[in-house]
Amino acid sequence: MNTLEQLGMAAKEASVRMRMLSSGDKNRGLFAAAEALIARKDEILAANEKDIEIAKEKGMKPALIDRLALTEVRIKGMAEGLVQVGGLDDPIGEILSMKQRPNGLMIGKKRVPLGVVGIIYEARPNVTADAFALCFKTGNAVILKGGSDALYSNQKIVEVICDALSAENLPKDALCLITDTDRAATVEFMKMNQYVDVLIPRGSAGLIKATVENSTIPVIETGTGNCHIYVDKTADIDMAVNIIFNAKTQRIGVCNACESLVIHKEILAEALPQIVAKLKEKDVEIRGDKAATAVCPTDIVPASEEDFSTEYLDYIISVKTVIDLDGAIRHINKHSTGHSESIITRDYNASQRFLNEIDSAAVYVNASTRFTDGFEFGFGAEIGISTQKLHARGPMGLEALTTSKFIIYGDGQIRC
Amino acid sequence: MNTLEQLGMAAKEASVRMRMLSSGDKNRGLFAAAEALIARKDEILAANEKDIEIAKEKGMKPALIDRLALTEVRIKGMAEGLVQVGGLDDPIGEILSMKQRPNGLMIGKKRVPLGVVGIIYEARPNVTADAFALCFKTGNAVILKGGSDALYSNQKIVEVICDALSAENLPKDALCLITDTDRAATVEFMKMNQYVDVLIPRGSAGLIKATVENSTIPVIETGTGNCHIYVDKTADIDMAVNIIFNAKTQRIGVCNACESLVIHKEILAEALPQIVAKLKEKDVEIRGDKAATAVCPTDIVPASEEDFSTEYLDYIISVKTVIDLDGAIRHINKHSTGHSESIITRDYNASQRFLNEIDSAAVYVNASTRFTDGFEFGFGAEIGISTQKLHARGPMGLEALTTSKFIIYGDGQIRC
Repeated sequence: MNTLEQLGMAAKEASVRMRMLSSGDKNRGLFAAAEALIARKDEILAANEKDIEIAKEKGMKPALIDRLALTEVRIKGMAEGLVQVGGLDDPIGEILSMKQRPNGLMIGKKRVPLGVVGIIYEARPNVTADAFALCFKTGNAVILKGGSDALYSNQKIVEVICDALSAENLPKDALCLITDTDRAATVEFMKMNQYVDVLIPRGSAGLIKATVENSTIPVIETGTGNCHIYVDKTADIDMAVNIIFNAKTQRIGVCNACESLVIHKEILAEALPQIVAKLKEKDVEIRGDKAATAVCPTDIVPASEEDFSTEYLDYIISVKTVIDLDGAIRHINKHSTGHSESIITRDYNASQRFLNEIDSAAVYVNASTRFTDGFEFGFGAEIGISTQKLHARGPMGLEALTTSKFIIYGDGQIRC
Repeated sequence: MNTLEQLGMAAKEASVRMRMLSSGDKNRGLFAAAEALIARKDEILAANEKDIEIAKEKGMKPALIDRLALTEVRIKGMAEGLVQVGGLDDPIGEILSMKQRPNGLMIGKKRVPLGVVGIIYEARPNVTADAFALCFKTGNAVILKGGSDALYSNQKIVEVICDALSAENLPKDALCLITDTDRAATVEFMKMNQYVDVLIPRGSAGLIKATVENSTIPVIETGTGNCHIYVDKTADIDMAVNIIFNAKTQRIGVCNACESLVIHKEILAEALPQIVAKLKEKDVEIRGDKAATAVCPTDIVPASEEDFSTEYLDYIISVKTVIDLDGAIRHINKHSTGHSESIITRDYNASQRFLNEIDSAAVYVNASTRFTDGFEFGFGAEIGISTQKLHARGPMGLEALTTSKFIIYGDGQIRC
């Protein structure tokens, strides 16, 4: 039995204990872990320093080093995150339905933990504490596979949290970290169906694709968002300008940022120059189709077909002109990643058709796509944003880390 | 572009229309398909005759030929199934929640179709009509990959249903059949993420395993059930005898049949001979551990370790003796496939612990495991019984063929 299997067994064993913990026990663990992170911050900073030295030697870009770097403030933020999750309602144990059948059997559906959750992620060491908190709160054990660049930091954070759990007589193997940075280990991890109930990749499109292709464990796909805003012919142009500016530039590196503007040809000449002028305040590069480029020839460069399928995560936006709502819906359903799309319109029928016919996790009328997020939706915490249709779709709160089981009370019933 | 891709595109195209159909339209399609099956029964019987001839030439066993064979009565049964699904409530369009956020955004969660469902199954041609009905009712397109032994039957059934849909001006590509019987085609089908939203294998453990291992599309695992009944030391012995006899012998080839008896050592000497005597009425072969064999040496043969992990689907049962409830829970959680387990007890605490600590889709107190089934649970129809934890767990009704999307009503909101 290799190290990875031992880790799997330990996590599975811990999940049996986790399933039985009360909300009070779980919150006690979260609060203790938060205190320990603060108390042992010097150790964590020292470990992080090692990661940063190696990263610098490797010539990592400053922006990425910044993502990797921990500070006292960031560690405090991690601890606060744990306390915050501790304060959320515990979804476990809720009876989702219960009814009596004609034969007297009482059949209930109860919310229970998934068991063992696997999370594969890339850079930021704060995800380590964050992922632990969400899984622990929902009674799951978690196996983490973090990016190799953050290995020392992750090892120390995990050690600190596990020590805190042990001191509270809680199952320390509820948090396991894969330290083997070999790619083969990651692929093996993705096939550990015996020990892992669900795998959640958090990171780049490449990581997510590799997970979907290699995993035999059920995967929840998160993340990539080629989000569209459609400006209908009846749109309030001021509103359209504000919303597009917000959705494109308020934060460029996030999956719910707007990447493509779709616009009705009848409003093009009036609306596009105003939208373009606003976007140019932040030097957004605008790549348009022929009709759009014709309206603003100095500010818009020609778009290639590939542009319409690209999640830029940058100060770039594509512009597609359509002749009607049908064209907009077809274009969006073809190019979108099923994340978030919005229509700007004053037309009741157009709004209803857009809501019904766009096949995405979150479909908006007259609002910025930037709201697709667990906190903004009122879930209190977020595991990620699912762009698949099974199990969870859209922003995932704590409930996405649970499953249900049927509990049946009988008094001797047999089947005829 | 090959045939399989064309099929995928056609199904995806049809799913766009399916999404917009009213319940009335969908029911009209189901009723028309039912009528067509009856009207064209002679064609279906003739196609089935071809399959049966080939099967006989190949030397297929009579039991399997019986499974494959259609009769007028069976075709009538298929048609009745379509009508029955037509009569069920349509789950699509339900608003699962809707609330206003502090910024005025109104965020709702709406039940919508999955899109394109893939179903891979083995023998019975009646599954063809059945799977179509459930998917059509829930606004999905479906791509079927049936067993090659039933190819002519399946082709004809699909032709009859598609003709009926066309005549009603409904999307005929909502039902597609893969006729390429090559294994390579099946593997390619399992990787058509671009066109298929979920894959459901229905059939043997081998088929399910191959699907989980090869598919990059999200899979819902159904089926295999190594189901346990635990006779606690305080059990009502008459009740235990009745329930075990029912769960083992009422229908042996089904996934919710009892395959293993777990029994507390303090009740062993008194209860086991009565249970054994009853099972012997139907010549059940009983394979026990040492303690069990010692109590009924003439009627019980020794079990191997493998027996405790075997789903017999036959007149065979294993018997495991445990020293306490902890031992029973540990044994069951180790060997069960997470399908259905039952405790027979008079002890309140034992019943609660069993319900809480057994990690299966359906956990019973004092009832036969044979009730785990969509119809018995009151869902009106069943797609299968999920033994995984994501999306759906336990018997799956129509809702398991749906997903949700967030619909958001704004009036110009942007994110700060």
